[in-house]
Amino acid sequence: MTLSARKPLLIDALQYNKPERARFEEWKRGGVGCVHVTLSIWENARETLTVIGEWNRLLEQNDDLIALATTGEDIERIAASGRTAVVYGFQDTSPFEDDIELIEIFYQLGVRIAQLTYNVQNRVASGCWEPDEAGVSKFFGRNVIAEMNRVGMVVDVSHCTERTCFDAIEYSSRPIAVTHANPQEFVGTDIELNRRNKSTALIKRLAETGGVIGLSNYPKIMKNGSDCTLDTFLDMVSWTVDLVGTDHVGLGTDFYDGWPESQIKWWRAGRWARESAIPIKGFSKWPSWFQSPVDFPNILEGLEKRGFSGEEIARIAGGNWLKLFREGFVPAASARTANAA
Amino acid sequence: MTLSARKPLLIDALQYNKPERARFEEWKRGGVGCVHVTLSIWENARETLTVIGEWNRLLEQNDDLIALATTGEDIERIAASGRTAVVYGFQDTSPFEDDIELIEIFYQLGVRIAQLTYNVQNRVASGCWEPDEAGVSKFFGRNVIAEMNRVGMVVDVSHCTERTCFDAIEYSSRPIAVTHANPQEFVGTDIELNRRNKSTALIKRLAETGGVIGLSNYPKIMKNGSDCTLDTFLDMVSWTVDLVGTDHVGLGTDFYDGWPESQIKWWRAGRWARESAIPIKGFSKWPSWFQSPVDFPNILEGLEKRGFSGEEIARIAGGNWLKLFREGFVPAASARTANAA
Repeated sequence: MTLSARKPLLIDALQYNKPERARFEEWKRGGVGCVHVTLSIWENARETLTVIGEWNRLLEQNDDLIALATTGEDIERIAASGRTAVVYGFQDTSPFEDDIELIEIFYQLGVRIAQLTYNVQNRVASGCWEPDEAGVSKFFGRNVIAEMNRVGMVVDVSHCTERTCFDAIEYSSRPIAVTHANPQEFVGTDIELNRRNKSTALIKRLAETGGVIGLSNYPKIMKNGSDCTLDTFLDMVSWTVDLVGTDHVGLGTDFYDGWPESQIKWWRAGRWARESAIPIKGFSKWPSWFQSPVDFPNILEGLEKRGFSGEEIARIAGGNWLKLFREGFVPAASARTANAA
Repeated sequence: MTLSARKPLLIDALQYNKPERARFEEWKRGGVGCVHVTLSIWENARETLTVIGEWNRLLEQNDDLIALATTGEDIERIAASGRTAVVYGFQDTSPFEDDIELIEIFYQLGVRIAQLTYNVQNRVASGCWEPDEAGVSKFFGRNVIAEMNRVGMVVDVSHCTERTCFDAIEYSSRPIAVTHANPQEFVGTDIELNRRNKSTALIKRLAETGGVIGLSNYPKIMKNGSDCTLDTFLDMVSWTVDLVGTDHVGLGTDFYDGWPESQIKWWRAGRWARESAIPIKGFSKWPSWFQSPVDFPNILEGLEKRGFSGEEIARIAGGNWLKLFREGFVPAASARTANAA
């Protein structure tokens, strides 16, 4: 049986496109069953409501291609219908502002994943541009994690400091996600942003506690950058599988498209600086074998050629994320009932 | 010449009352020439605009007793007219949200002092309930200090971690304020909240860099709490003067009145927790010799009996704050011009 005949559920654990139909068509062509999309980095509560309003219209106008998923079952059903399941997420807890109650409110609106912070320090935690020792804050940070655990919102730490990642694992009663990052040890220090990647110790701890890491082909955090070959990417998958097995590795491309270049400054500096602290050099050139999500089959076929079994590929392509999402998106009380049953 | 005849300018570097005429009358009776009032702890930008709107009405309706001061000259002029000069301040950078531009906007509205954070971690810095090593954040935190320096807003670190205090002194190009705190070494560890007070090393560094500390008779951070005698308070003034001289010591009572007890939960937990992390035991009982600002003469007469000269009392009572405010409230460009002239 060929790969295309088996059609493993493919989940991309992070994309941050300007949301528009061209992207949804690429997902269809690439056979992507589910994408975790970013609604907010620096947007506050009110601004995020506007973004959700825009998605409401997009979901209505593109219901032949996409639908919102708020449970694992939604993801399977939507993907089985030949469409792409959209999972809402934040790359920073900015939409929660300083209000513990806003977590449940955004959950009610469909948000299922939130990264504690994006690159810098906020009220909750600290990002990878800050000093290593900066972790989850003792009060609001721990409260936010407990509340996310309670309502059923998955904690993401992709852009956080090492200390924040370990703190989040410690304080979270449920497995957490690194939706989009690579192993530091594999990528190597030639890559300027390797600090954004994750230590071997952390990836092991993440796996021990039931978490999943989504490996990314975003040039800025890949070995050899834009020149990274598919073989090197597959080497990274194999390296990570050798470290933690096939149950804790997934895909999280960090793909983005459709933005004007001015958007980069928003990502790098938000409103908190007049200029980016990191020089802005334009958008990265994606590798030849992944120009867009249309090219996902290159990765799946590559894994097959490497000798991964169909079951293993199914886990890496989406099964591991599906399990974490199916369990993680359910409120804690329901999860306990389910376990007891 | 008696003290009352000399009438030193009296500046209280922090009060956080529910703003109402009864307080302004107490200020008048106590001979208080200037009070730094708190407009916001957890209030965001929009909510703080409402608070400023309320003050606009209060200033209009009570112009026989109070007036807004935005310069050192305003303070002197208003106090000389027998009224109390009101200086606007924040006890947290919450009103700036994540926006570097909001600092200038609140400056335009009259705000002249902002504490970097109140007890916990925010985007800018870390408060005294957090781990000691948490400091000023590398990006937004340093940007906020630089912008406050530029526009002429004084940095206050009363409730911040030791590391945040030292960081703020390092990154600020202008002297900073500890508007309301006491020396840890003098108060001693019998007091539960002594962590809120300041180390000897920090007070020395503050003074070396032109800063001022406002000593407080707030029972929670005083030796012997509510039973602290006037003599003990005066001992603390003498102790601090022995450490850094008379040029860097002022008064900052942390007095508050007029709030319902429910307000305590707002101060302790804001919206960021459903319950206070610190048990709420009701309002503190103020010491017998300072039931309200009406009793300020007790402190001034006490200082005189201790043998402080009229000049020294004038510095401690308000002269040191006046100097810091006169220089600190002026935009950096003007300050440079003034120095060059």
